[in-house]
Amino acid sequence: MFTPRSPQRLQESLEQIAALLDRHRVLEELAHKQEGPNRELLEVLQHRQNLADLRHRLRGLHPADAAFVLDAVPPEDRLLIWGQLDPATRGDVLLEVSRPVRDALLGATPREELRECLGRLDAEDLAYLSDALDPELRLEVFRGLDEGDLSWVRSSTLYPADTVGHLMVQEYVTAREDQPLAAILESLRGQAGLPRPLDQIYVVDGRNVLRGLLPLEDLLTGDPTAKTGDRMRPHEVFFAPEEKAEPAARAFERYDLVSAPVLDERGKLLGRLTVDAVMDFVREQSQVQALRRAGLAGDEDLYASLWASARNRWFWLALNLVTAFLASRVIGLFEETIAGLLALATLMPIVASIGGNTGNQTVALMIRGLALGQIGAGSRRAILRKELAVALLNGLVWGGVLAFLALLLYRSLSLSLVLSAAVLLNLMVAAAVGVATPLLLQRLGRDPAQGSSVLLTFTTDGMGFFIFLGLAKAFLT
Amino acid sequence: MFTPRSPQRLQESLEQIAALLDRHRVLEELAHKQEGPNRELLEVLQHRQNLADLRHRLRGLHPADAAFVLDAVPPEDRLLIWGQLDPATRGDVLLEVSRPVRDALLGATPREELRECLGRLDAEDLAYLSDALDPELRLEVFRGLDEGDLSWVRSSTLYPADTVGHLMVQEYVTAREDQPLAAILESLRGQAGLPRPLDQIYVVDGRNVLRGLLPLEDLLTGDPTAKTGDRMRPHEVFFAPEEKAEPAARAFERYDLVSAPVLDERGKLLGRLTVDAVMDFVREQSQVQALRRAGLAGDEDLYASLWASARNRWFWLALNLVTAFLASRVIGLFEETIAGLLALATLMPIVASIGGNTGNQTVALMIRGLALGQIGAGSRRAILRKELAVALLNGLVWGGVLAFLALLLYRSLSLSLVLSAAVLLNLMVAAAVGVATPLLLQRLGRDPAQGSSVLLTFTTDGMGFFIFLGLAKAFLT
Repeated sequence: MFTPRSPQRLQESLEQIAALLDRHRVLEELAHKQEGPNRELLEVLQHRQNLADLRHRLRGLHPADAAFVLDAVPPEDRLLIWGQLDPATRGDVLLEVSRPVRDALLGATPREELRECLGRLDAEDLAYLSDALDPELRLEVFRGLDEGDLSWVRSSTLYPADTVGHLMVQEYVTAREDQPLAAILESLRGQAGLPRPLDQIYVVDGRNVLRGLLPLEDLLTGDPTAKTGDRMRPHEVFFAPEEKAEPAARAFERYDLVSAPVLDERGKLLGRLTVDAVMDFVREQSQVQALRRAGLAGDEDLYASLWASARNRWFWLALNLVTAFLASRVIGLFEETIAGLLALATLMPIVASIGGNTGNQTVALMIRGLALGQIGAGSRRAILRKELAVALLNGLVWGGVLAFLALLLYRSLSLSLVLSAAVLLNLMVAAAVGVATPLLLQRLGRDPAQGSSVLLTFTTDGMGFFIFLGLAKAFLT
Repeated sequence: MFTPRSPQRLQESLEQIAALLDRHRVLEELAHKQEGPNRELLEVLQHRQNLADLRHRLRGLHPADAAFVLDAVPPEDRLLIWGQLDPATRGDVLLEVSRPVRDALLGATPREELRECLGRLDAEDLAYLSDALDPELRLEVFRGLDEGDLSWVRSSTLYPADTVGHLMVQEYVTAREDQPLAAILESLRGQAGLPRPLDQIYVVDGRNVLRGLLPLEDLLTGDPTAKTGDRMRPHEVFFAPEEKAEPAARAFERYDLVSAPVLDERGKLLGRLTVDAVMDFVREQSQVQALRRAGLAGDEDLYASLWASARNRWFWLALNLVTAFLASRVIGLFEETIAGLLALATLMPIVASIGGNTGNQTVALMIRGLALGQIGAGSRRAILRKELAVALLNGLVWGGVLAFLALLLYRSLSLSLVLSAAVLLNLMVAAAVGVATPLLLQRLGRDPAQGSSVLLTFTTDGMGFFIFLGLAKAFLT
């Protein structure tokens, strides 16, 4: 089997593979230049040797590492690497690569080869891959499964990707209440491979209803003649397949779980949620959220096609265009005031920019607080009060600094006072909107991160211009 | 012992506790109003009953859940809740609360009580807490440890918080090569509590040098008379204590590890890294990064003090002030041009805003790509080319839309053409800077997320103004 590597050794492998790829490119170019009888045998041999080296390197890799290599190389090298992988491991590699790379590989591999590499995967893995396969291929591959596996695949693919049911696996170990511990140990001894990670055994009745859990350490340390029913513990943490995966992941973190049972509404054991699936989910979620805050679909890849990338950004670009246009109309209202004092046009972006920047700090804190469940109904007002106080304090300090700079530049005390008042007020607007926006998005049933910064910037820009130019109109003209 | 809860039941507990806190506040107010002989016995009793209910609820909670409650309530309720907790569990709760809450609780609890609740913790936990304790208290608490534990605490607190050594634990199970499997099972049977999670046994020689691993499933399924040395597997993944925790966490995700050994440079077993510590680290890292991108120190809390919060935001606020001021000087260069055509002042923020927005999308993708190790030397040019192409495409489309809107508004074809050209060019600047900024920050040895959006916005604002007003000066005046 494949052995995992320490991070340093993986990095070394990656560098060697990159070097072999570079060499491959150079040799390919040489070969193209010397097409025909002139092509030298030595170079052909070198080229062949280089490919063999590459294949050797790749075949020594754990499938997760081969997937890492596929994710890291530019698109034009992907198929070269994919082609050098051992057909027996290609299925496992498909499971590990990122979604866009998987789609690209599936699209570029002949159907016959795909059938072969998918045929080596088990029901769990096929369920995981199933929505990436085209319907015809899916049907062909599923034909190879037995009745039980097929119904598993069908039911687990019915659950949306962010639910427990989608992440759960079918593999677990069960025992009966009346068995002595020794009998469980005996039955394990005969088995070829136990499900991993195995930290507890599920004690079920004849109808597969979960009666309790037997932690593996109790099995190992307990008196072998003791009855399982006397040693089992109640199952306090369990999940329903339709539950959201996010709170389930929180429970794994909070209670340091390694696995937990998934039950239907009558308490029947449906499957198992394991820490490795939860950890992959947590990492993916945090990355998706970071992209969402910037207004990107969570699955955009650095190497996605030009067309897909451009379209992916249109919604937020269009929204930003509309909000920027609206904010600019605010300026339009004051064109006369600006005509009277051109310094206003120069200084107004500062007011808007500082509001946007500090508002985004508040938004970031709110999003984290909401994710951690730290913001109860009682604490909202306290948070708003505090953010307003911070804005007031910072507005006085930095509005003052700015007023001083403007005074040096324009020698107008009244302009400086208007500027510092506008900075102060816009910071307070930013604090209030920064607290309110994520709460509002959440109330609307949306991800509080999604688009919060576009909404915030719209308000701080528009209000920044309005406050500054409005004050200027009132006091300077 | 405490039992963990399903997420729904925890939510219910939280709501009940919030209701009891509200009632507590109302009753307290009543009591204050009727100070003196007028105060009615009934209300005193109600107040007492309410506190007893609260205590009962809190004492039924898992320490991690009690910590969750402490994190979620406003600061003024924290001490009330802390006071109702069972002294025996307060130490465990301290381990689980967030850093600012921990500091607040440590500061507000009498030293005598602290000594008691810390005295119940083991060496691992004390090492974890040690840098939150003041030196005098630390010394007192450590005095209770035996020689071995003390040296453990000393060595593990020497490693920085983002290294493997800081996260590792001391608890593991070892065996010798010449033991038959049955002997290991027998020795486990006598033990009171095994370290959790236990997925493998470390096979060591007489000097505690790691020789191999025995997965627990091999122990359970193997022939009891087989020698451990014949059944053990090589330890391919292991870490050094001074290694960074981030790549170690990646290895846990990639290879679905539950635990891994930590070795010194001679291969001696120092400790163990477990998946629960890794998962906490991953979650914390992703939150710290989200705050950093907004220009906040990673450990700022929603309930931090006013003064701490204000100061925490000063560095980036000051930097933003400087960059906004510099960008505004660009406008100052063109005041004459603006005087000739006031529409320029109205439209210029649109050019800047759209550049900032799309540039931040590129930055978000780059940060994810860097975190995933997807950006090798060979792929940088490909990414830049693609982002420039996306900017070109989007600039043509949305620059065109904007030009059309401006045409309706100002009836000037030349102004519209200048606007659309400026949008197109600024999107390309944003793409280039969005690719370059995270790479540059990384090259400088900094977190590519830290401050990337302030740097980006500075460039897209300044260049946006310069391009738009410069084109206007050249072609419209």
